[in-house]
Amino acid sequence: MLCVRPRGDEQVFKELKQEVCRANLELIDSQLVTLTWGNASGFDPRENLVVIKPSGMTYKEMKPEQMVVVDLNGSVIEGDLQPSSDTPTHIELYKSFEGINSVVHTHSDFASMFAQANKEIPCLGTTHADYFKGSVPITRKLSQDEVESNYEKNTGKAIVEAFENMDYWAVPAALVAGHGPFAWGKTPEEAVKVSKALEKIAKMAWGTLGLKPEQIPLPYYIIRKHYSRKHGPDAYYGQKKGEEHD
Amino acid sequence: MLCVRPRGDEQVFKELKQEVCRANLELIDSQLVTLTWGNASGFDPRENLVVIKPSGMTYKEMKPEQMVVVDLNGSVIEGDLQPSSDTPTHIELYKSFEGINSVVHTHSDFASMFAQANKEIPCLGTTHADYFKGSVPITRKLSQDEVESNYEKNTGKAIVEAFENMDYWAVPAALVAGHGPFAWGKTPEEAVKVSKALEKIAKMAWGTLGLKPEQIPLPYYIIRKHYSRKHGPDAYYGQKKGEEHD
Amino acid sequence: MLCVRPRGDEQVFKELKQEVCRANLELIDSQLVTLTWGNASGFDPRENLVVIKPSGMTYKEMKPEQMVVVDLNGSVIEGDLQPSSDTPTHIELYKSFEGINSVVHTHSDFASMFAQANKEIPCLGTTHADYFKGSVPITRKLSQDEVESNYEKNTGKAIVEAFENMDYWAVPAALVAGHGPFAWGKTPEEAVKVSKALEKIAKMAWGTLGLKPEQIPLPYYIIRKHYSRKHGPDAYYGQKKGEEHD
Amino acid sequence: MLCVRPRGDEQVFKELKQEVCRANLELIDSQLVTLTWGNASGFDPRENLVVIKPSGMTYKEMKPEQMVVVDLNGSVIEGDLQPSSDTPTHIELYKSFEGINSVVHTHSDFASMFAQANKEIPCLGTTHADYFKGSVPITRKLSQDEVESNYEKNTGKAIVEAFENMDYWAVPAALVAGHGPFAWGKTPEEAVKVSKALEKIAKMAWGTLGLKPEQIPLPYYIIRKHYSRKHGPDAYYGQKKGEEHD
Repeated sequence: MLCVRPRGDEQVFKELKQEVCRANLELIDSQLVTLTWGNASGFDPRENLVVIKPSGMTYKEMKPEQMVVVDLNGSVIEGDLQPSSDTPTHIELYKSFEGINSVVHTHSDFASMFAQANKEIPCLGTTHADYFKGSVPITRKLSQDEVESNYEKNTGKAIVEAFENMDYWAVPAALVAGHGPFAWGKTPEEAVKVSKALEKIAKMAWGTLGLKPEQIPLPYYIIRKHYSRKHGPDAYYGQKKGEEHD
Repeated sequence: MLCVRPRGDEQVFKELKQEVCRANLELIDSQLVTLTWGNASGFDPRENLVVIKPSGMTYKEMKPEQMVVVDLNGSVIEGDLQPSSDTPTHIELYKSFEGINSVVHTHSDFASMFAQANKEIPCLGTTHADYFKGSVPITRKLSQDEVESNYEKNTGKAIVEAFENMDYWAVPAALVAGHGPFAWGKTPEEAVKVSKALEKIAKMAWGTLGLKPEQIPLPYYIIRKHYSRKHGPDAYYGQKKGEEHD
Repeated sequence: MLCVRPRGDEQVFKELKQEVCRANLELIDSQLVTLTWGNASGFDPRENLVVIKPSGMTYKEMKPEQMVVVDLNGSVIEGDLQPSSDTPTHIELYKSFEGINSVVHTHSDFASMFAQANKEIPCLGTTHADYFKGSVPITRKLSQDEVESNYEKNTGKAIVEAFENMDYWAVPAALVAGHGPFAWGKTPEEAVKVSKALEKIAKMAWGTLGLKPEQIPLPYYIIRKHYSRKHGPDAYYGQKKGEEHD
Repeated sequence: MLCVRPRGDEQVFKELKQEVCRANLELIDSQLVTLTWGNASGFDPRENLVVIKPSGMTYKEMKPEQMVVVDLNGSVIEGDLQPSSDTPTHIELYKSFEGINSVVHTHSDFASMFAQANKEIPCLGTTHADYFKGSVPITRKLSQDEVESNYEKNTGKAIVEAFENMDYWAVPAALVAGHGPFAWGKTPEEAVKVSKALEKIAKMAWGTLGLKPEQIPLPYYIIRKHYSRKHGPDAYYGQKKGEEHD
């Protein structure tokens, strides 16, 4: 509970702020983010608080202590800077996708091309299936009303809506129509890794469709096989059973 | 007025020369410029003088004191080197677009592809709308006469013409047909940032049209929303109200 | 014979482990591998043992002594870590392609695009013919049964099947349908070089088909000429006769 | 005349060897060359001798003293290593294109795509016209006889043939059908610069045709204007009159 710790105590979230700052810097180092176009956040489920990048912050000057702490109503709890303008989108995801502790948003090139074309990313290969157990969905378009009031919150709601009949663990990312990708995970490090994989599989899908525009997705038995090699109780990829999510 | 300061005093423009030199170097570092294909200039509105890169200068040897100062007639006021051959284009923009203090020209890959295809860059996504409130226009083709006499000046006039019914603040860049992009801003740093954004949104648009050749632009209510998040009195992106232009 | 040396003696394979580790690191340095998507192995034909990268290992922490030694049944002979999940595929290749001493698997961008499109890479230019004496083949799709039991072994069998009527020395690589490329050679260094060449010729083929989708392969007399410049008894490229394979 | 200096005197060509070595290294640094796929040579018109990269030489180990000196019959005059297998192509160009003192051959990505598609590179923009006064031509295909005997020499002859009605100064490069680009200039430095420009304009043309497959070349009055800004007696680009060629 919030009352357990004094507000303004800068030490409490020190570790999460470091992870979130490192995640943001990793986005720029891996060229998923240009200029200031992206943001990573972390979630502390005990405190129900979000740690997020300040808005419009130049990456090379970013320090852990500048990360902003907000509650699930979007109120700033700690920090002198404005939080990312996309904060309400992150909050919607934390409220609806139980268990995720990090959200990463970028405008990475190829994922954004699919988003701008209003197309989901079909599962055309095993690289995709290693991370996403099916297509990466595209949100529905927002109405003028939804854009003009509470735009960022409605963006989050549209992402959640896209997962009405899907498992947000099995496909830990979505494309916002006309905008770009959001990804999530158990830690900032994991959400960044998903963002990197997403951009690469978007590039591969883009190039595959260039060679064969009518290419159909992999049969489900291959998708399931590859996904299960890396995730869940039967995983046998990596050094620990099911290390990616469990 | 020019008479206020002695001509040839190399210290007067020291700061602007440094900014212009830094902007030129930033163009090569961010791979917007290959070989010597680009130029950034700055404008001092009190003196009505332009500080610009020397023509054909190798970037790695460029120093602030080599920047050339010219007046709005194109006459060299200071400097031992020839100014960029595109200087008359820059001058036309300073004369017509009141308030801009920097112009940047590159042959960046994807923006040049649109220029060479004689196509404007449609606003296909929010990344675009964050910087440009609509399509980035393409100039009309120049006639043989316009090419054979005062080519660079006529290039500038064609850019200005493309903004006859458009706000050059809301769309701070243009593509010159068959040539490449020009961008502008309140400072060299801002004009470089616009050039970077332009190249990225050109790449995204290029790839989006590859996936869906008939893709239509975003609805205007989304363009306006995104543009207004970052620019003007209601801006709420970044740390200062409307920091991008105001 | 295995009985000649005591099991668990970490020094015996020291040199091969170094070569295999270096090959894996070279894959990440040359951007053929993203995250942990790839693996290189080496084969000791005297001992009939395979040295391979551990599964899911982060590249920047990889050390020669972590490479895993397995026999041709896939049993771990030396090493504390799990071998790459693709180990059974490597083993099938060592068992069937006599004389190869290294296998490299990546998910490199353009080779994977062809794999995902289920298309072989046609020989459209001399760069291709310098390394591959004809198309780089694509495997047939695996059945549900083949995927659900012994998937990785069946993947290896499908590669071998694709070479039923082809010389695996003349075309030292294959694309696994819906997955990505495998390449091989006499040494880890050579197999990495083939992987680099493969990605580049995949990129060139991809772009060539973009310009001219119906482009036909080179006439065989040019393929043979170029291939023979670099390989076999009449080679006259490089400093030693036939240095690439003989 | 050759008799003026004792054969085998390693100091005579010291400077040219340094320039040629530097040019070869610049090709790899600017990513025009992958692995060993390229070669730069220099020509000494007083001695009628060619200095060229050794065949198949790894770039990172290349030293000026390893450059090989050959005469116009292809006989090695100096050096312990085999000259590039493409030497006879370089020689044909030196014999026919009077005044060129350097030839550079690469397999750079986009120029090779046009070569593999058997398409010339049309002049679609001013970047192209700044370096090439019209299309970069593609050679005719060689017959089986021409490939099977004196292949590299016949490749050179085919390039020369493509310039029967063209000025090799005005368009200092050609694409060899199914192979890749050759470029030339007055110095190794200039030939490398042309190679860089060629790859960039090939990329821009490739992307332009992706946006608009039927795009037509620039009108000739613009090509002439841009070319003349940089080349010949009326040049006004750069710091010296006509610095690029004169």
